[in-house]
Amino acid sequence: YTQAKTLKQNQPCKQIILYYHDILFNGTDLANATSAQITNETALSHNFGMMVVFDDPMTKDGRLLSPPVARAQGFYFYDRKNTYNAWFAYTLIFNSTDYKGTLNIMGADPLPEKTRDLSVVGGTGDFFMTRGIATFTTEEVQGDYYFRLKMDIKLYECYNHK
Amino acid sequence: YTQAKTLKQNQPCKQIILYYHDILFNGTDLANATSAQITNETALSHNFGMMVVFDDPMTKDGRLLSPPVARAQGFYFYDRKNTYNAWFAYTLIFNSTDYKGTLNIMGADPLPEKTRDLSVVGGTGDFFMTRGIATFTTEEVQGDYYFRLKMDIKLYECYNHK
Amino acid sequence: YTQAKTLKQNQPCKQIILYYHDILFNGTDLANATSAQITNETALSHNFGMMVVFDDPMTKDGRLLSPPVARAQGFYFYDRKNTYNAWFAYTLIFNSTDYKGTLNIMGADPLPEKTRDLSVVGGTGDFFMTRGIATFTTEEVQGDYYFRLKMDIKLYECYNHK
Repeated sequence: YTQAKTLKQNQPCKQIILYYHDILFNGTDLANATSAQITNETALSHNFGMMVVFDDPMTKDGRLLSPPVARAQGFYFYDRKNTYNAWFAYTLIFNSTDYKGTLNIMGADPLPEKTRDLSVVGGTGDFFMTRGIATFTTEEVQGDYYFRLKMDIKLYECYNHK
Repeated sequence: YTQAKTLKQNQPCKQIILYYHDILFNGTDLANATSAQITNETALSHNFGMMVVFDDPMTKDGRLLSPPVARAQGFYFYDRKNTYNAWFAYTLIFNSTDYKGTLNIMGADPLPEKTRDLSVVGGTGDFFMTRGIATFTTEEVQGDYYFRLKMDIKLYECYNHK
Repeated sequence: YTQAKTLKQNQPCKQIILYYHDILFNGTDLANATSAQITNETALSHNFGMMVVFDDPMTKDGRLLSPPVARAQGFYFYDRKNTYNAWFAYTLIFNSTDYKGTLNIMGADPLPEKTRDLSVVGGTGDFFMTRGIATFTTEEVQGDYYFRLKMDIKLYECYNHK
């Protein structure tokens, strides 16, 4: 086996904390909805198999009506029988004075855990070739049609791109 | 924060330009179709929620009937209300005299942008452990059932594998 | 072009071999099923377009009833007309005395090939920031509702995280 390198988890090369607001289409709120269910849940319960496509606003604080600084575009689905458990793959798209570019993220979101770590597997633009970890915390759930996640994004590979 | 490293965007370790042809099944062209819709669009318009699975030919020039040098296998879906906007995850599979191996790619494809950057998040075979950027340009759209993308793939991490 | 680095394929920094058991819901075995179909196959045959969400047990040997040492959570779908060919994206979730953390994996699974390589595109916890290759081998197929894959996971980027 080749040797492991050392990387300090508390010393990312960049950290961005944003809040994700998912407003699932409920059949009538076309103007407000930012996501929609595309497959039905199966007989396996806890929404197993229900898939949702989203184009969700990302804000700097936890308020839904704050100006979005990025969009989260992708999908999640539920994948466990005995509890609510999801899996995400999506892109954060930044187009602001702070950042222009994208972060690509995928991983499991086991809701019963207080925090969940997903992988930032790549980036473009200002985030050219980056990698890191996105830590999810559930901030609020309002019935079946709104929830908010805190996404604490720590990048450990950063590149100046010239 | 740890320091950023420098990587020159115009100096990839490898560059491959290929053309992606998507021939969506229209209900009758079983012989020609290379992709098929698997979920319906939702009420959110602009095909929001419509997902397509594909096994599309990749050619060295923009001609559909040129001999494929790779296959693109994966899926895309539309995810915006106010414009056509897609999200892709797929594998390029090479099995030619030039290359044997795969590239795994994911990211957002906001169609209104002239060019869109996605992440090459990994590779196998001749592309063992690679990473990079795949830049999409729309070359042609023919109605609802054919479009062609130019994919300009620049790899920035290349490994000799012994 | 910048220079390629060298990495020895037979010298991973870590190797883990596990067996994946997929028990597809057949309409009646709610208690045993660990996966479920969420979209119908299309007219393109060979299950083209059929998507399955799974929460499958991973064992250290090939026996379904051995104690799981991890869960595989994600999805696969079939994507070829002329043969069975799949595409996977999923997370391996470890929560044992051996390992705590996740591996995120994606790539093509062309079933006719004896072995298939997918990309390990990231990791968390004990697998913080890792990358590597997951090699699939089909071990057993029992009708339409059970199959077992050997997953030989070789990691080539390993980090001590402090």
